[in-house]
Amino acid sequence: MKVGIVGGGQLARMMLEEASRLGIDTVVLAESPEDGAAKVCAEVLIGHPADRSAMASLASACDVITLDHELVDLEIIGDLIAAGHPVWPAPSALIYAVDKAEMRTTLSEAGLPMPRFEIVPPGSSVDLDELGQRWGWPLVLKAARGGYDGKGVFIVGDADEAASTLGELHAQGVTGLFEERVEIEAELAALVVRRPNGEIKAWPVVETAQVAGVCREVLVPGDLSAAIAEKAEAIALRVADEVAVVGVMAVELFATADGLVVNELAMRPHNSGHWTQDGASTSQFENHLRAVLDLPLGSTEMSARFVASVNVFGGSEAIALEEGLLGALDVPEAKVHLYGKASREGRKLGHVNVAGNDGSMVRRAAWKAATALGTPMPDEIRGVEL
Amino acid sequence: MKVGIVGGGQLARMMLEEASRLGIDTVVLAESPEDGAAKVCAEVLIGHPADRSAMASLASACDVITLDHELVDLEIIGDLIAAGHPVWPAPSALIYAVDKAEMRTTLSEAGLPMPRFEIVPPGSSVDLDELGQRWGWPLVLKAARGGYDGKGVFIVGDADEAASTLGELHAQGVTGLFEERVEIEAELAALVVRRPNGEIKAWPVVETAQVAGVCREVLVPGDLSAAIAEKAEAIALRVADEVAVVGVMAVELFATADGLVVNELAMRPHNSGHWTQDGASTSQFENHLRAVLDLPLGSTEMSARFVASVNVFGGSEAIALEEGLLGALDVPEAKVHLYGKASREGRKLGHVNVAGNDGSMVRRAAWKAATALGTPMPDEIRGVEL
Repeated sequence: MKVGIVGGGQLARMMLEEASRLGIDTVVLAESPEDGAAKVCAEVLIGHPADRSAMASLASACDVITLDHELVDLEIIGDLIAAGHPVWPAPSALIYAVDKAEMRTTLSEAGLPMPRFEIVPPGSSVDLDELGQRWGWPLVLKAARGGYDGKGVFIVGDADEAASTLGELHAQGVTGLFEERVEIEAELAALVVRRPNGEIKAWPVVETAQVAGVCREVLVPGDLSAAIAEKAEAIALRVADEVAVVGVMAVELFATADGLVVNELAMRPHNSGHWTQDGASTSQFENHLRAVLDLPLGSTEMSARFVASVNVFGGSEAIALEEGLLGALDVPEAKVHLYGKASREGRKLGHVNVAGNDGSMVRRAAWKAATALGTPMPDEIRGVEL
Repeated sequence: MKVGIVGGGQLARMMLEEASRLGIDTVVLAESPEDGAAKVCAEVLIGHPADRSAMASLASACDVITLDHELVDLEIIGDLIAAGHPVWPAPSALIYAVDKAEMRTTLSEAGLPMPRFEIVPPGSSVDLDELGQRWGWPLVLKAARGGYDGKGVFIVGDADEAASTLGELHAQGVTGLFEERVEIEAELAALVVRRPNGEIKAWPVVETAQVAGVCREVLVPGDLSAAIAEKAEAIALRVADEVAVVGVMAVELFATADGLVVNELAMRPHNSGHWTQDGASTSQFENHLRAVLDLPLGSTEMSARFVASVNVFGGSEAIALEEGLLGALDVPEAKVHLYGKASREGRKLGHVNVAGNDGSMVRRAAWKAATALGTPMPDEIRGVEL
């Protein structure tokens, strides 16, 4: 029973920690031996997921393949499956995480709540003045494929800017996805896990704080009303069934004055679910492995009333690991997770989870440890007194 | 910040899981690439701890060395330290885990409660008839060095049997340690962790169930009275300070009608402390790493009222990993830990932890998962209804 993971990033690294615990063998396809997961895995293949032979080597070295990221070639994956190598999630689901235009089209046809959108593939055009007039400037323009962590998402203020950014996407052969810019009251994420046989479980819905498109903090349950959380969970469960995902799926949503809308999907463990490592009966990484191996799913219940998860980023001055840990481990409640990356300004290096029965304590403790590890405190994060 | 671990067993494997989480690099000196820890570590040296050059390679590949087991050469370790390579625990502490005769002598001089004992090195003798008369047959005879998991411990029924077993030890150059056989009311273990600067923490004392010298089950708090647990903890804290251990130390004790006596010491994470992975704020593996790296120790508080930890052993028929996991993961409360070993009758393959607020539930759930993984239910374990 051996799991192959495409990609050597932190998600792979955290899957490996759980695989080790469960006695499951692993092999990672990493782009570099310096990748976070490559540094903690006994068997590492160096290669790119767009390289057929690298993917074939991975397939022949394991029983089932899963993913650390979605920057993969669906055709290669489809061919591996056709040749008898299981890959989860399958391309029929993965397409909705890989391609935002496909996701918008299919989920809107399924009646799921979405912002208005317009898909503009290379070689085609749209009346931008008319679009701006109809939805109101600025608009959101996304690269349908290839973006992550805020990359590939542009706020365009007028028709000229829109045309120029769209032109750049088209020049790279990438489809443009225009969306109306909704007034966001809160950002949420709903995390579910689904097994090939359809067994499905949802973790409690979380509130996320994003700065410049990058997740900085996850609060469970945050300030979300039970009614909103229930709706978000229902949407995620419906999406998971609709696309028949296998493994963990995160649905990122916006709460607006008109209700919830789906923002994005991720079909793998997700930053908004890192809190589950220390705040839920079963972590997203363990349940992802269970799902892709078609094993019974673990309970997704919270193990405390409140959990805060704060991402660790490199600041303008790199802090040595030892110095950072000396400070962070002095916060008694903090569970520190680091990804084995060298510090660099703005680079995501890890996260800190704190679970407890006092909502402001868990948040304060998590930020205290994260800042000890060198994370700059963003102005946008309010209400935390260190 | 890189930790080198001598030995590739399950204790090393579980240290690696925590090291990965904390972003700490690791290198393992394993005897075989098939060792449990070698299968999950990116950097593995193959060699024996009694081989000076293997130990020197390990030292030059890391910043600090620690141990998976105590079957090591204290002279080699002493020389590494003298050459400037930190090793924790240091030989001045380790000797009491490596050599039971040294442990008995030093701890009894320190006034710690012990069974009566008599040390008989090769080349010397003792009046066995007189010893048996004084303490009453049978006696316990231990190999002063080299034993583990019940190996190297003999119950000798009369002077002839005692002489013959002692002769075998002496023929191997091993000192014999005779001990009176005490009437055991309960077996306990007290687990502590100590940092180079003297910071020390104790986890709650546990009750263990041993069958033929092998630990089968750990219950926290078990049936121990608060008074007994307090005394056991005080003994462990005193021993740790007395020998200035760095890292985790387990003191195994017997409760007798006359009070507690020290049975053995282990200076590394210990089977009686595996419950801390899922039942305490900080696991013994994380705190062991923190201690040997001289980082602040984490809280040792329980995270639930009751914890049961049951060891997984191979039965007469090997169960495939997948089949075992299908059953064990179906027990919702169970946290399954497997060591990546092939199943063989009587081989320790893993353990299952269950934490909760109902003492009989946690025990039943842990045994349910352990038996699903193929563990035979020993007749000596009472009061569990599967």
